[in-house]
Amino acid sequence: MTKEFFKVTDLPKVLRYAPLFKRVATEEVPLNQATERILAADIVSDIDLPDFSKSTMDGYAVRASSTFGATESNPAYLNIIGSVAMGETPDFSIGNGQAARISTGGMLPGSSDSVVMIEHSELLDDTSIEVYRSVAPGQNILEKGEDIQKGVPLLSSGQRLRPQETGLLAALGHRTVCVYKKPAVGIISTGDEIVPVDVKPDSGQIRDINTYTLSGLVSKAGAIPITYGIVKDDVDDLFEKCRLAHSQADMVLISGGSSVGTRDFTVEVISAMSDSRILVYGISISPGKPTILAESQSKSIWGLPGHVASAMIVFYIVVMPFIEHISGLSLEDKKRIKLPAILNRNISSAQGRTDFTRVRLIEKNGVLYAEPILGKSGLIHTMLQADGLIEIGINTEGLDKGTRVDVMLL
Amino acid sequence: MTKEFFKVTDLPKVLRYAPLFKRVATEEVPLNQATERILAADIVSDIDLPDFSKSTMDGYAVRASSTFGATESNPAYLNIIGSVAMGETPDFSIGNGQAARISTGGMLPGSSDSVVMIEHSELLDDTSIEVYRSVAPGQNILEKGEDIQKGVPLLSSGQRLRPQETGLLAALGHRTVCVYKKPAVGIISTGDEIVPVDVKPDSGQIRDINTYTLSGLVSKAGAIPITYGIVKDDVDDLFEKCRLAHSQADMVLISGGSSVGTRDFTVEVISAMSDSRILVYGISISPGKPTILAESQSKSIWGLPGHVASAMIVFYIVVMPFIEHISGLSLEDKKRIKLPAILNRNISSAQGRTDFTRVRLIEKNGVLYAEPILGKSGLIHTMLQADGLIEIGINTEGLDKGTRVDVMLL
Repeated sequence: MTKEFFKVTDLPKVLRYAPLFKRVATEEVPLNQATERILAADIVSDIDLPDFSKSTMDGYAVRASSTFGATESNPAYLNIIGSVAMGETPDFSIGNGQAARISTGGMLPGSSDSVVMIEHSELLDDTSIEVYRSVAPGQNILEKGEDIQKGVPLLSSGQRLRPQETGLLAALGHRTVCVYKKPAVGIISTGDEIVPVDVKPDSGQIRDINTYTLSGLVSKAGAIPITYGIVKDDVDDLFEKCRLAHSQADMVLISGGSSVGTRDFTVEVISAMSDSRILVYGISISPGKPTILAESQSKSIWGLPGHVASAMIVFYIVVMPFIEHISGLSLEDKKRIKLPAILNRNISSAQGRTDFTRVRLIEKNGVLYAEPILGKSGLIHTMLQADGLIEIGINTEGLDKGTRVDVMLL
Repeated sequence: MTKEFFKVTDLPKVLRYAPLFKRVATEEVPLNQATERILAADIVSDIDLPDFSKSTMDGYAVRASSTFGATESNPAYLNIIGSVAMGETPDFSIGNGQAARISTGGMLPGSSDSVVMIEHSELLDDTSIEVYRSVAPGQNILEKGEDIQKGVPLLSSGQRLRPQETGLLAALGHRTVCVYKKPAVGIISTGDEIVPVDVKPDSGQIRDINTYTLSGLVSKAGAIPITYGIVKDDVDDLFEKCRLAHSQADMVLISGGSSVGTRDFTVEVISAMSDSRILVYGISISPGKPTILAESQSKSIWGLPGHVASAMIVFYIVVMPFIEHISGLSLEDKKRIKLPAILNRNISSAQGRTDFTRVRLIEKNGVLYAEPILGKSGLIHTMLQADGLIEIGINTEGLDKGTRVDVMLL
């Protein structure tokens, strides 16, 4: 045994391996299942939206010039010559001094160019109104193509669909959408001391937590967790499970390899996978240093720390960007939301590694403070208390109270 | 017809109606489906975690006093008297000058109080090591109950379960969890001009967008959308659909009632529902003024604006808090994430109403700017361009460029 267990890789270098891995295939899904999915095609409008000029108010379609100069004391008098039925094309045109009843969304009759709001008019009898305010041409209407113009690129492959993008696809008549499949992520828990959740642990044993935290994280990342249960520290068993997971999933997470013994097993097993190569034997981050990344047939296999908090943080910081890559997500959409806050305590940190400190967010007098959570890093209660993580750079010895920090939400 | 169509209600008053409505029932779900669900029970630990003292490092379990004063040049010599197998209770104790091999997660033998990291020791032969650094009692170990103490309240009903809370429940042995059911939200689109997405609109018609945007929003809010298609402007049809939706769902959204005619239908239909009362005939917000809120048998029925952008914004600002309430979410967890940014343009706003302006987020030299999106408010492209919304208070005439604003993300 040596004092140096493994050569660690810097975080940015680890993240640069992501594009090595194969993106998932695409599939066609019904539009009502498209929201939150990642678009796998560019979308160009083949229609104008609206494809007719329409009213944005309830009122009267007019020629604006018929209302010029109208005021409360000097109203314009217009003749009502018809009414626009919703969803239909009016079969008449508007002349000078004429008006037609129209509702929000109704199609403008020929020669009308604006709509007088009902609030700015008064019905005198069935065929005439007074108008108290002038309208300008184009007022209270939406012109053909004013929202979306035919031929204009609207959405790009790799974009995550929000409800509004799904709405746009509805407007354009897409009954189905081409999206990337959700990646399947296999999860294997290892360790002789780990027992399933429904077993009462004997002395020295603990229940399997990582299967559940990692499944939850995989789902949050938009992927599908496939769990393979617990494997004891046995190379053959782990190899069989790993091979099965690798054949069924797009990525494999093996958690529990933080003790040297288990780590050795994991490395041995991954090395035995076909065409595999280990890319990363450890990452210069804390927590999460004993993380292994390997590639086998364009899929990634991870050895994650056994400590629940470390495994979760490695997932957020390192694994998630790889899931995003294979999910087809574009760079543009990968930006994480970080909340600025003021650090309310000094934090020390070792140089030569990137630290991720759990923080609680506290609002006081309209200012958001980030309070570092104390306690040993492996503990689950530190994750329960945490609202987010802050990053302390590799060349930084720590951060002073009062520093502005960016908090990644957990 | 009058110039005042309806008496509008202030937004805070509207939001105060939320507690009127009945929360959904609870259900027991398997632990692997619990993440993102809302807990419906308080959780107290019935065990200590860990329930044995364990090592957090690979190394040697010792009595700390055996290492006091140890340095590189003056190491402590210890006898290895055994090895701790993972998941088992060691059947020996550690005396002065003794050590036992132990892996991360292993159970401390009796009388040991700390662990020497493998990096700070050298194996001399099978039964002895040199230790180069002293350890303090408690160092590199986790004491029984140090993470979670038996009897301590950990989670509360109404809390949204993140992966770490699900992990805690695994650690405590919960195979299933009592959570609130996901509310079902019925969605009805109205309007004679609306056609289904798979129909090519005739002149004057448009495709149904709101069914899709609202379904996506309902899912994002953690509820289940049930869609009832499009109803033409016919009181009897709308009444039948509304009654069906009300019997099947926990909340009903009717979109498209922004023209006076359709609004009148909606009001008539809601009034005809059993034990119904209209609480809100309009809200002093823009966009979204012509919004109706009614109560029927402890369920809410909404008349939402027909404009897609207005309907979406009303959903975010008004409907969402009602869904959160009936979902069982606690106040604590209802806090929305708002990103501070600097407004990069002046915005004007009318007094007497709360304005919600769509903004694009732009980062420049590390500063986040919010740029108001121009264009008519009903347009879907404004929602496509928008990253978020900012609120302009009811007593404010506008906001100046350079103002710090809080952006609700869309």
